[in-house]
Amino acid sequence: MNIPQTSFPRIVIVGGGFAGLAAARALENQELQVVLIDKHNYHTFQPLLYQVATGGLEPDSIAFPLRKRFNDVENFYFRLAEVTKVNSEENLLETTIGSLEYDELIIATGSTTNFFGNKSIEKYAMEMKSVPQALNIRSLVLENFEEALLETNLEKRLALMNFVIVGGGPTGVELAGALAEMKKGILPKDYPDLDIRQMKINLIQSSGELLKGMSNGASQKAEDFLIKLGVDVWKNLRVLNYDGETVTTNGEDHFKTATVIWAAGVKGDTIDGLTTECTVERANRFKVDRFSKVEGYENIYAVGDVACMKTEKYEYGHPMMAQPAIQQGRLMGKNLVAKYTGKKQKSFEYNDKGSMATIGRNKAVVDLPKWKFQGVFAWFVWMFVHLFSLIGFRNKVIVFMNWVYNYIRFDRETRLIIRPYKKKNKFSFASDE
Amino acid sequence: MNIPQTSFPRIVIVGGGFAGLAAARALENQELQVVLIDKHNYHTFQPLLYQVATGGLEPDSIAFPLRKRFNDVENFYFRLAEVTKVNSEENLLETTIGSLEYDELIIATGSTTNFFGNKSIEKYAMEMKSVPQALNIRSLVLENFEEALLETNLEKRLALMNFVIVGGGPTGVELAGALAEMKKGILPKDYPDLDIRQMKINLIQSSGELLKGMSNGASQKAEDFLIKLGVDVWKNLRVLNYDGETVTTNGEDHFKTATVIWAAGVKGDTIDGLTTECTVERANRFKVDRFSKVEGYENIYAVGDVACMKTEKYEYGHPMMAQPAIQQGRLMGKNLVAKYTGKKQKSFEYNDKGSMATIGRNKAVVDLPKWKFQGVFAWFVWMFVHLFSLIGFRNKVIVFMNWVYNYIRFDRETRLIIRPYKKKNKFSFASDE
Repeated sequence: MNIPQTSFPRIVIVGGGFAGLAAARALENQELQVVLIDKHNYHTFQPLLYQVATGGLEPDSIAFPLRKRFNDVENFYFRLAEVTKVNSEENLLETTIGSLEYDELIIATGSTTNFFGNKSIEKYAMEMKSVPQALNIRSLVLENFEEALLETNLEKRLALMNFVIVGGGPTGVELAGALAEMKKGILPKDYPDLDIRQMKINLIQSSGELLKGMSNGASQKAEDFLIKLGVDVWKNLRVLNYDGETVTTNGEDHFKTATVIWAAGVKGDTIDGLTTECTVERANRFKVDRFSKVEGYENIYAVGDVACMKTEKYEYGHPMMAQPAIQQGRLMGKNLVAKYTGKKQKSFEYNDKGSMATIGRNKAVVDLPKWKFQGVFAWFVWMFVHLFSLIGFRNKVIVFMNWVYNYIRFDRETRLIIRPYKKKNKFSFASDE
Repeated sequence: MNIPQTSFPRIVIVGGGFAGLAAARALENQELQVVLIDKHNYHTFQPLLYQVATGGLEPDSIAFPLRKRFNDVENFYFRLAEVTKVNSEENLLETTIGSLEYDELIIATGSTTNFFGNKSIEKYAMEMKSVPQALNIRSLVLENFEEALLETNLEKRLALMNFVIVGGGPTGVELAGALAEMKKGILPKDYPDLDIRQMKINLIQSSGELLKGMSNGASQKAEDFLIKLGVDVWKNLRVLNYDGETVTTNGEDHFKTATVIWAAGVKGDTIDGLTTECTVERANRFKVDRFSKVEGYENIYAVGDVACMKTEKYEYGHPMMAQPAIQQGRLMGKNLVAKYTGKKQKSFEYNDKGSMATIGRNKAVVDLPKWKFQGVFAWFVWMFVHLFSLIGFRNKVIVFMNWVYNYIRFDRETRLIIRPYKKKNKFSFASDE
């Protein structure tokens, strides 16, 4: 892989998401060689992907070039590659661009969509874990309306304008809200010759409440907001299948639709080669101790979504979100610095700063440890926190300008089909470009 | 195609570029039905494509959703489709989404890259006439450096860092300049473990001067600027072939390169079905009269790049640029309004407002009818004119913010490989994602 051998110990980090980035930052300018490997050359700010998918933000504003992040860092190497396997006996990482020896290996590969083994849903439903996937959703939504315009068969037209979002977590809620705002403010203007009232947005949640893990107040208010925006919220309903045409459920309700967005679960995006005993059944994450060390290994660590660190409070591991990932990554880096400078390592304790979700214009819910609130102020807090967390000054400015523009003009202007999505569902007709 | 039949005459415009858009605007809110057809759902501001290709701007900031442009216009219809054929005897336009009758047909299909029949160049070279193509160049350039980093064979590494731009018109000059600025300011920081001095940027022009059509002063100054930025300018050199590995020329110089960007010519992107006599050999444009009427037809018009309107001053038709397209489109619309309101139609006279090109930071050349100047002030004029010409307030703001940021920070931050370019050249190795 063409990385120079030095006298410094080599720390290899796989993944430039929240956890990997935080670890790399904490390892900066030490007597250590740091190699960061990612299959993309950019960091993705996943919490705003849904705005890319719904035409509110350009993809480039929520992505940040990984090389730039480390421009001024000594002994740092970035490599664009996919990791294929860990050979832990020889301390060797195998990748698409050759293998690399490591002294310490930090796995921060994050998570991927969990279809729970359903191949048909996997084939036909859309997912939203990466920028290209969000862009695919953006293209598909717009293509649907272009097609609905031409469709004379009512049943097919309704299916093209029927959107089913499976999963009532933050992703599902935020996406449903954003689609509802498009329905309200933008689509009737863009498609005056189409009856946009026929558009349906269904949010299906298998349990009895949205935003599980947040307070009851937040959960209830989010539901109220969604209903007010015209979203059909289905609770206690489990999706059984989607065959590219119909969503079947365990209830009496079925949905004929051209678009299913699957936000019902994620699972750890683990790396091959580690003994299976160390991976936890639930959500496919690596079982780690309080120092993020993967069970059964001495110099292999996992942080972020891919790690399952069981504690008294989090018996199934921490929530697969940005905050635990950032905190685990940062401590991981600090602990390795401590290890090589002979200092004491600290065990991880999650500092839950709270969680929040936005539903639409002036509508958000925020749970802070000591204060829970919803509505306009929550919405401003949500915006401030997300703007502040974005990496890069340019990105902050561009996102801010877009938000101000969208707010004042009731608009979302990046509704461009830059690369058409090649449909797999059964409502497609000649849409090749 | 599901367009209502009304008592109003139906004007069909093919293409939402500069010419088509100007025509549609001029036809607004008249007793006419206007149908605009484009294969993209957005207008592309082509003069800034090179900045998308070199990481200076996000694609969404130079594209504008066509539907939004006509949100408040009565009797206006947009359809996303590709036109396959004109059936002029039945006044019927055939498209990928069905056929459509027209009373008046305006062809504003623009131009496409002209490879002058060389299939090998067409297969291996990059072109830059659309947003996806510009994004492909952006991905390829970055992928090349990621690969160069790994390449131990010196000859191959040099080829990966060797860029050949064919064509010394505005596109070639601006692209060469932008690449040279990347070489200077960005790549050495992003790739500290690569010797960026080995990067070469070659601009090959078949004639004896760059920016043909501009003044001698502009042409000479542009060349000076490029040389100062480290571009190798080759004049009076004609490219004969590129086989994915080596560019051969009619001179002694050959270029081993992984990247050829073909900016050596465009040709009209004509529509099938019109008798061949009406298309002009040179550049494949439709021969039109001073009222943009295609020779041999009564209700078919061509405007912009695809039209060849011969005048005393422009014996081969007007230059294939934004200005003539906008002016022809606007007059076309006005003339149709005149026709249907019984007013007199005007014959086209091109008002040449001048031309300009930017080479890099503080470096541009401007030819106004009565004033020709180069340097810092020209650069500000260039920026002001382009910002002002961009469609959409949001786009203007975003582009402006990006330019300010890039200027102050000597940076271009959108260097993201969002969708990897699948290489066709012979230097590719496993880069599939």
